[in-house]
This record gives sequence, C-alpha cells and structure tokens, in this order.
Amino acid sequence: MKRTVFLGLFLLSLNALQAEDGYRLWLRYDLIGNKALLQQYRSTLTAVIFPATTPMLAAARQELLTGLRGLLGVTPRSSGTNSTLIVRLQDDPLLGSEGFAIRTTSQKNILLTASTDKGILYGVFRFLRLLQMQEPINRLDITSTPSLPYRILDHWDNLNRRVERGYAGLSLWDWFTLPTYKDQRYTDYARANASIGINGTVLNNVNASPYILTPDWLEKAASLADIFRPYGIRVYLSVRFSSPIDIGGLKTADPLDPAVREWWRKKADEIYRLIPDFGGFLVKANSEGQPGPQNYGRTHADGANMLAEALDPHQGIVIWRAFVYSNETPEDRARQAYTEFKPLDGQFHKNVLVQVKNGPIDFQPREPFHPLFGAMPHTPLLLEVQLTQEYLGFSSHLVYLAPLFEECLDADTHLNGTVSQTIQGIAGVANIGNDRNWCGHIFAQANWYAFGRLAWESGGAAAPYSAAIATEWIKQTFTNKPSVIDSIKQMMMASREITVDYMTPLGLHHIMAYEHHYGPGPWLANATRADWNPVYYHKADTAGIGFDRTTTGSNALEQYAPGARAQWANADSCPDQWLLWWHHVSWNHRMHTGRTLWAELCRKYYAGVDSVRWMQRCWTALRPAIDPERWQQVNMRLAIQEKNAVEWRNACLLYFQTFSRQPLPEAAERPDHTLEYYKQHIIYYAPGTNQ
Amino acid sequence: MKRTVFLGLFLLSLNALQAEDGYRLWLRYDLIGNKALLQQYRSTLTAVIFPATTPMLAAARQELLTGLRGLLGVTPRSSGTNSTLIVRLQDDPLLGSEGFAIRTTSQKNILLTASTDKGILYGVFRFLRLLQMQEPINRLDITSTPSLPYRILDHWDNLNRRVERGYAGLSLWDWFTLPTYKDQRYTDYARANASIGINGTVLNNVNASPYILTPDWLEKAASLADIFRPYGIRVYLSVRFSSPIDIGGLKTADPLDPAVREWWRKKADEIYRLIPDFGGFLVKANSEGQPGPQNYGRTHADGANMLAEALDPHQGIVIWRAFVYSNETPEDRARQAYTEFKPLDGQFHKNVLVQVKNGPIDFQPREPFHPLFGAMPHTPLLLEVQLTQEYLGFSSHLVYLAPLFEECLDADTHLNGTVSQTIQGIAGVANIGNDRNWCGHIFAQANWYAFGRLAWESGGAAAPYSAAIATEWIKQTFTNKPSVIDSIKQMMMASREITVDYMTPLGLHHIMAYEHHYGPGPWLANATRADWNPVYYHKADTAGIGFDRTTTGSNALEQYAPGARAQWANADSCPDQWLLWWHHVSWNHRMHTGRTLWAELCRKYYAGVDSVRWMQRCWTALRPAIDPERWQQVNMRLAIQEKNAVEWRNACLLYFQTFSRQPLPEAAERPDHTLEYYKQHIIYYAPGTNQ
Repeated sequence: MKRTVFLGLFLLSLNALQAEDGYRLWLRYDLIGNKALLQQYRSTLTAVIFPATTPMLAAARQELLTGLRGLLGVTPRSSGTNSTLIVRLQDDPLLGSEGFAIRTTSQKNILLTASTDKGILYGVFRFLRLLQMQEPINRLDITSTPSLPYRILDHWDNLNRRVERGYAGLSLWDWFTLPTYKDQRYTDYARANASIGINGTVLNNVNASPYILTPDWLEKAASLADIFRPYGIRVYLSVRFSSPIDIGGLKTADPLDPAVREWWRKKADEIYRLIPDFGGFLVKANSEGQPGPQNYGRTHADGANMLAEALDPHQGIVIWRAFVYSNETPEDRARQAYTEFKPLDGQFHKNVLVQVKNGPIDFQPREPFHPLFGAMPHTPLLLEVQLTQEYLGFSSHLVYLAPLFEECLDADTHLNGTVSQTIQGIAGVANIGNDRNWCGHIFAQANWYAFGRLAWESGGAAAPYSAAIATEWIKQTFTNKPSVIDSIKQMMMASREITVDYMTPLGLHHIMAYEHHYGPGPWLANATRADWNPVYYHKADTAGIGFDRTTTGSNALEQYAPGARAQWANADSCPDQWLLWWHHVSWNHRMHTGRTLWAELCRKYYAGVDSVRWMQRCWTALRPAIDPERWQQVNMRLAIQEKNAVEWRNACLLYFQTFSRQPLPEAAERPDHTLEYYKQHIIYYAPGTNQ
Repeated sequence: MKRTVFLGLFLLSLNALQAEDGYRLWLRYDLIGNKALLQQYRSTLTAVIFPATTPMLAAARQELLTGLRGLLGVTPRSSGTNSTLIVRLQDDPLLGSEGFAIRTTSQKNILLTASTDKGILYGVFRFLRLLQMQEPINRLDITSTPSLPYRILDHWDNLNRRVERGYAGLSLWDWFTLPTYKDQRYTDYARANASIGINGTVLNNVNASPYILTPDWLEKAASLADIFRPYGIRVYLSVRFSSPIDIGGLKTADPLDPAVREWWRKKADEIYRLIPDFGGFLVKANSEGQPGPQNYGRTHADGANMLAEALDPHQGIVIWRAFVYSNETPEDRARQAYTEFKPLDGQFHKNVLVQVKNGPIDFQPREPFHPLFGAMPHTPLLLEVQLTQEYLGFSSHLVYLAPLFEECLDADTHLNGTVSQTIQGIAGVANIGNDRNWCGHIFAQANWYAFGRLAWESGGAAAPYSAAIATEWIKQTFTNKPSVIDSIKQMMMASREITVDYMTPLGLHHIMAYEHHYGPGPWLANATRADWNPVYYHKADTAGIGFDRTTTGSNALEQYAPGARAQWANADSCPDQWLLWWHHVSWNHRMHTGRTLWAELCRKYYAGVDSVRWMQRCWTALRPAIDPERWQQVNMRLAIQEKNAVEWRNACLLYFQTFSRQPLPEAAERPDHTLEYYKQHIIYYAPGTNQ
C-alpha cells in the first residue's frame, strides 16, 4: 500500500504539468488532494464488481474505472466481499428506463442498480460526481430519475461546418472526413453529455440543408450515431421541408401529396436501416424563409403529421418548432407563435412534439415565459433554450444562464402549473464548437453543464437549482476549496442580472446591432422588416419608452391566463424588470425604487458596468487558487466583457438621452465617445453569421 | 543524483499519459529514453550560462530551459566552469544577421554564439534539435547561416476565419477576440516557426478584404506582431489594391494618382506606428478578379512601385504575385505569367519582390519549374510553394511534399543556375488551422517542418535534403528507433510519387473536380472559362492525350532556355513523367518502359492504389512502435486515402478508356462502379472553398 500512495503523489504533481486548457470539462478525475478523504475512499472502494455484457455497460464500466484510477490513484480489485462497489441490473419499476439507485448495504458494500443499461450509465456518472465533489460515500441512499424524458442538444451546425450563432470555432462534426475518420472528440462529447443526462442530439442546423438526407450524409450521421449509442444518446436530424423537391426529384413537397408522403416514408426506412435507434426529425417550417406546408395551403399540423406517420413505424418523433413569424402579419411579433399554434392544439399526431422557445421573441437576456406553455394541453411541448449566447455577448461574456432557464421553468403559467410542468423535455441550442475548451469561454461550459442538470432535475422539489448546480460545476471543474467555490459562485449567480443591466435593463429587449447581435444598436431602423429593428422594440420617443403590449397596445397580454396577466397589466404594479416589455411609460415614470425611469435606467446601465468590474476584481483575487492557463483565459475574456459593457452603457444612454433630454448622473464616468462614434463603429466579420 | 534519475523515470512514464494528439509538433522535449545517452548529456550539460537582456533572448533562454528540463529531466545550474553551455552574443561577420555557431571549447564547454539575438534564437533551437535527435554533443563544430533571407508563411486566412484552401479547421487567428484575447496557440505557432527558421508570416488571404487596413484590424494584427516579435517573425499583410476606394473614400485607386499615393503613404505610416518592424504588403492584383493597376491602364510595376515608395521609408517590402492569368487572353494559361512579367524586368522599385509559383499552372502534383525563374535577372524573386494540399488530397492524404519542393529548387534553369540560385526567399502557403494537431494530418506537419528547413538549407552543398529532413522530423516527432525511422521515411519519401501515380501520372495535370479540387473530374468541360476545365488540360481524344506545348502547339516551351527546352522538346526523348505536359501523343505511343502509353497509364494508376495499400501495411506494422492515439489518427486517414485513390484510378481509367478504346489490364482489380456513377458522385460542402 505504501508504494501505491507514493505513486499517487507523483501522479498528482504530474497532473499539474498537464496543459490546463479546459478540454477536460467537468470530467477531470484528478487525484483527490485531501489525503484523509482519499484514504477513506480507497478503503471504501477496494473492489469493483461490474459485469459488462453490452456496449453501453462496457462504456459505463470503462468510465468508472478511468474515473476511479484517476481520483484514487489506484485500480480497485475486480472481486471482493466487502468495501466493494457492486454494479448490476436489477428490475425496479420505480426507476423507470433511465433512473438508478445507489445504496450502502448492510455488508458495507455500495450497490449501484438500475432496470436498464442506461440507468447504470447515469448511475456511474452520478457516483463519480460524488467523488469529484468529495462527498461522503459511507452511507449512501440515492435514488434518481429524470424529470423530463427528452433532454436534447440542438446543434445549429451547417454542413460546411459553420455554426449559426456559434462562437466556439467550427462545428465539432468534421463532415468531410466522416464516416471514416472518427475524432476522439466525438467520444468525449458523448461522455460529457452522458455525465449530465443528455439523451439526444440534433446534429444539424434547423435552417437545414437538404443534402443531410442524401446517402453520403446519412452514412456520416450513422457513424456519429454509432459512437454516441453506448452513451445513451440518440441522433436526430433537422430536415428541410422541401427535401422531396430538392433532392428527391419531385415537383412538390405538399404534405397531402401521396408521392411526397411515400418519399418521406422511404427516406425514414432508409435512415432506420442505417441508424436503428434514430430519434427523429426537427423541423423549422414557414419561418424566416424556410419552406413549409403553408406553401401548399396546408397547416403546420398537416406537415408535422405527414412526417410523423413516416417515422411512427420506427418509434421516431417529429419535433416541430413553434418559432414562426410571418413576413406579412403586421401584428406584434411576440403574439405570432401563439396565434398560429394555439388553434392547432389537438390536431397533431401522437408522436409530434411542438418546440417552444422560452420567451415569445428570441432568446433575449430577459423575456417573460412564452404564452404557449400551458395553452396546448393536448400537445406535448418541448422547451427550447439557447446555450449559445447569441444575444448575451457570445462566448466573450461570462454569463451563467441557469438562473435565466430556471426563471422560465419555475414561472407559473396559471394554467397547468409551472412551465416545467407543461413540458415533456428541453432542447438546448448548443454552445459547443471545435475550440479546444469546447465553448470558447471556460464559464460557458457551465451553461452546457447546467442545461443537462436542469433537464434532469427540473420537476423536483429541491428548486432553486441554479446555485446548487453552480456548486457542482465549480467543484468538478476548478476546486473543492470552500472559499473559492463561494467566490466563483457569487460571480456566476450575479452574472446574468449584470448582463441584463448593461445590455437591456427594465424590460428592454432586442436592441442589439443587426445580424450579429453582438453590440448595442438601439438606433437601428432600416432593416428589411420592421420587427428586425431595435426601434420597433423599444419605441423610445420624447414622451417615453417601452412596448405597450397591454389592451391599449398590441394586447399580447391577452394570450396569457388571467393570473399571469395580473402581474404585468398595470404599469404601476408591474415589476421593474418587466416594465418596458409591457408598457410605454414616460421618462419620469416613478419606479418601485422611487427613482424616475430615466434615473433608474442610468443607474442600471452604470451598475452593469460596475458589476463587471467587480467580477474582474473577484477573479483577480482568485488568481492564486486557479491554474495559470485557465485563469488567464478567463481574465482576458473579462477584459473584453468590461470593454463591451462600457460600450453598451455609453451607446444606449447617449442614444436614449436624445429622447429623455435629461442629464446623465452627476459624478458618473463620462462616455469616452460621442453617440455618432458608436453609431459609426461597425463590427466586421463577427462570428456566428454567414459572412 | 540518484533521486533525480528516479524522478526522471517517473516523468517518462507519466508523459505517456499525456494525450498524444499531435499538438506538440516536433517540439516535444520528452525525457530521453536511452539511459546511457541521458547520462552523457547530463554530465555534459551541468550548467547553462545565458544572460538574456532582450525579449528575444529571454524567449530563447526560456525555450532552452524548458527543452533541457524536459529532455534531461533536470534543471542545469546557472553557473559553472566546465560542462557548461555558454550562450552569448559575439560579433562574427561570417554569421550575418541570422546565423550562429555552436562549438565545443577546449575547456569542454559548449559555446553558442551569434552576432544577433536572432542568431542566438535559431542556435538554441538547433541545439535542442541535436538533443532531440540524440546526436553526440561532445565535439560540436557547427556553423549555420540561412541560404535565403526571406522564409515566409502565407496564410490564406479570411477575416471571417475561413481559410481558402484550408483543411485544418478555422484560421488560427481568432480575429474577433483579438487584440485582447491572446490564445496560447499564437505563442506556440511562433515557437514552431522559429524552430525551423521561418522569419515572416502573411496573416491574411491574398484575396484580401480591404477591412484588414481599418484601425480595428491593424490593432489586431499588431497584437499578433507583439507575440511573434520575440520569435523573430515579422508580420506582413495582404492588401487589396482598391483599398483607397473601399475604405478610404477615394474615387480611384490609380497608382499614378497623387491622392492615392498619399493615401498609401499615410496608411503605411499608420501601420508602422503600431508595428514598428512590419514586413510589408503582399499583393494579388489583376488576377482572378482582383483589382489592380491594369484597371487604370497602368502596369504591374506602376502598382508595385507606388506601394514600395510608401513602405520604403520604413524598410518595408512589397511582394507582388506573378500568378496572373487574364480572362481575355486565349493563349495557354501556362504562358501567361511569363508573358506579362518578363518585359517588366528592371522596372520594379528596389524593395519590390516578385513572387512566382513553383510551376506555371497551379500547385499540381507535378509541374515543370516556372519559366520566370532565371528570366528576371534584375528583379528579386520569391518562390511560392503550397503546403496546404489543394490539389493533393487535402489533409486527408499522406503526401510528403519536400521532394516536390526540392525537385523545383534543384531544377536547372539553364540561365542562372538552379531555381534555388535565382531566388531571394520562399513563401509557403500555410497548411495550418485551429485543428488540435495544427495541420489536420499528423504527416502534414512534416510539410510545414520541411518547408522551413528547405528554406534555410536550400542553397548549400548537402542536397538532396528531403530524406535528411524527413529523418529530422521523424526523430523529433515520433521516435529515435532506427528501424521505425527507416520505415516511416520510406513511406514519406515514396508518398508524393504515389500520389502523382493515382492522380495525375505521366505529366497529366489539373484534372481535379471543380472548385474544391479534391476528387477526379477529367470529364468536366463546362466551367465559366476554358482553362478551368480538365478537358482543356488533358485534351484526350481518340487519337491520343496530352497538351502540345511545343512549337506545333502553344509553344510554352519557348519561354525556357534552350538547355531546359532540350529535355522536353521531343516526345520520344521527353522523360515519361513530363510527357503529357508537353506533348499530345497517341494511345499507342511507345514509352521508355517499352509499354504503350495506354498500358503505362493503366500501370501507373494501378501502382498508385497498390502503393497506398503498401503504406497502409507499413503503418499497420508500425502499430507497436507508435502511441495509439496518433497511430489511429494516421490509420484512419490512410483508409480515406486508399478509398480516394481507388476512386481516382477507376474514374480516370474508365473515362480515358472511352477515348483509348483499349481494355484495362487483365487480372487487375475491376472498377466497382460505372463511369456514370463517378460522374454523378458530387462532393457537397468540401472544405477550403467559400460554400
């Protein structure tokens, strides 16, 4: 034993030589530094009994042994009668198809059981998390099942490897060298997802190329599916509704045309021959220029049901996006999805799920929950959130998104409970690319992590989760030292509200610059359609600012249940954070803080910048506690965030000041440029667009 | 000492745990496994005396200590009187501004000297290479100076991070987060270049965006220049000739217009304020749609000289590309650069260099040397070669390019000696991207390595170099085990000829598919211009095949000196490898092997495929000698190469057979598809294009 401990210490010091570039995510498995605890773990885990008879069990077993070897610095024996971890299938209806149990037995063994291979897989990752978080393992009694059956990443990855709204390099999928070249990252991606319970991945952009359904590309997709399968991840594809025309040689894509229906049936059969557990299709139809059933005078339900019938024999599903807004309809864009989809409730085939964004506009720093949640009782819904920070500073800004997701999940629909109670799953628009650290920003990894964890836990009684999940992530990613955890957690938990403050406080939304959505552009007014213009959303004039969505305005409010409406309907009682979303109010409107709207707006923008600087100070203080490479990475990104926050504040306040005609707060930092400068300062070649 | 050795052994075993993903290139610095040699090195290098008073010397010193710590597993003392490595500046005119000397002194010290910081830097890398190659260091007497002053990488990187003809992911330059975020890879890129003597880098594509010259982008370029400066690398930029119009608000870019000249002068001044050692401009003008002086009735010399005058006060240079071919001129494309540039010899300003591709067409698997070499005695020339394998299987094929480069460098111009004797430097179109292993294919790293080494050594007496450079690269990248080195070297040295065989044997050229140039497309005939069509180049008909460039044809031959012409002019004496470049000959033409042309063509295509399979067998046999991760990477790429080689062979032979009307060799492997299949098989979204 002495020799082993000695080796272990060497391992520790040498792991420190490894490049800390963020690649290992939250699956580091470094030797446990706390010697007493290490000794305890070692004596509790002298052996592992884990018969692995399937590829999934083999993957779980390999992960377990890799993890234990790293964390404990020893390889447990493969047989034992006590102090043994026993992993085995054992039928238990309460655990369902994905749950697991981990219990300390009377013989001082640890028993990890599940009814399915997948439950075992998730249980193994859960067990490794216990060790990574340095929790006691001598009296375990854990049972865990997921809240939601569908926990899916949506990759907006184009077939040319550009990622729409991607800020972490190219697509992970090197389509050109697939199916032959199988990058190690594909496996590591699957491991990371399995570790947080993600069980599906849509490989390609919802703005889909029809070529994804050609034989060459299906073979590539099948190659990825083969790699992901042992990790419990099903592959889905986004499809273009006009594919029967584009690649099938048909003259129409009319969903009621028999030849079209036949084409999709045959295509589904072809796919399932290659990918027997294929998940299904994700469809963006009749939205932002994409073709759809309305091109043929048919409804969304007609289109979705045709695909559903093709997939049904294979147990596949159709995920049909509710993110639609017509070029013609002049009404408030916030109303459009509800207007189109609410009447279709009950008309969809049973294997169709409708995917609804968290808010009615488009992934803003803050939006009220989407009115369709709770309003489609006969239609299974998926919640769509965005991990990639299209409107939140890309991967340059530290913004922990779990509080945003949780705000939506916990919102009371006043119809069928909270949003989380109205859905069958969550889809997260991935923030992953081929950057070495996967997400561009080390802290953006936390959004990937939190997404999976929230999808697993959201329905339970232990909410709020955001802070607890942050703790998990920090412990596994950085350190188990309590003071460091606290400090990082404070930064993370504050970060979303800070971003709202320096970008879009008090209910403002969609005032970002055109196309790339990176910096401020509240003055923009000449887009090809009105509702792509910031001025459409803030409606600032000399009388005041804000979008009146009450009965005196667009009345988007009427799409919500009375109980939900009540909180927002009156400008005087509406919480400050939602005010300008629902109301157009005067610059001197009295806020709940007692300040005028203008004064509060100034306070928020200044507080946003000050708080970024506070994050910088926190991070500087953490320098001794973090490895130099990752510390430096984050430090440089915080410098970008600070610069951008100042630009946001100055540009927005100088612009809104032209309407409010009131001064900036005395003694506050003066803008270092004129409004004209900000208007002229164009960002060329921002990532995430098709430039 | 005992303890140190022990630690050293642990270091070795733990380095094996490091992910062998190719990131470390040829700068691995792993502990030397040969114990006797390690002991010898340690006793010869007990101390290092290296005063470092400048950033460049500090970088060199840090590299030296990092290298020694890794290779020897110990840190040498910083003082000593014998067994000491002494590094110091010492004026020696023979070493010039970049050379160095390394000598064992009578006191059994090693003295590394140079006249400049840069010489020291190169000397340090040379010394580390000695250790990495496990050469004796007890009686050193090395003096080294570069053959050519300009050793430059040209990045065809667009500002949106797409790399034109790039097959290793996105551009290394993450422009969006520059200048604030300084990726560690920027430094590692500079180290790798410095280690092989590369002293310049053109950051952006020759098809240049004008925005590169806006203040934001110059600041980004300056940030990179700051990182590269201690490694002796000067930054150059590609510029768009119409920039004064595009971003300067002028109405013209006429090089004789005073306002235009003034605009460039001011722009140069602005650049040098940010980058005091800025290298200069690279220009692609009046070629493939790029604007240039001819738009205003001026000559290439007029355009180049205007820029040269703007840069001259700052000691900057203009690199003007000779790769031009007009849309209008109907003559043989191979003739055009010579026709345009030869008459301009003597008209360029002294700080203009004309950059000429190795062959007269465009980076084919084999081309004769460009007729401009030796033909411009009054104009300094740069040779442009392509490391990225646009026409050589991208980064999917193992093709060691040094023999191709060397074939050109050693070609006798019959005017002023060999090509290497007619040039001032070499520019290599980079094959580097943000893929973890830098180049996509581990073996593509060898082309980067060999480029730098050839540029340093090309003029010397020790040619041929390709094999020696391969040995260097293998020893530093893989192993010092002789049998393994031999085996890998055999693969590398054969690989270029193998590729010629399965793609374009016997002088064939440019028969690749449109746009991406990846697979075969000899049947293609409907491009927007004649000389983008494969049929233009092979001219196959029932009478025969090949491009008659002799006096009976385009007479491109006349652009060469008589001595050069003589080897190619006659179809009967022309070496087989050049035959179809120069001559249109009958299918039954008797080759030097005694076979008919058709039989020889078949033999070559079949040999190409067979030889790829031979490479696969070699690599399989090497499995025990290579770490699993890199072995697997290469193995999967070889599988792609084999598949592609079969496609090339089958498609080309089936197509040419429609003209030759002769059978394929009996008993040979039959094509597994019809010609029609190959014609229909389109590759969508190939990398390297702007799709």
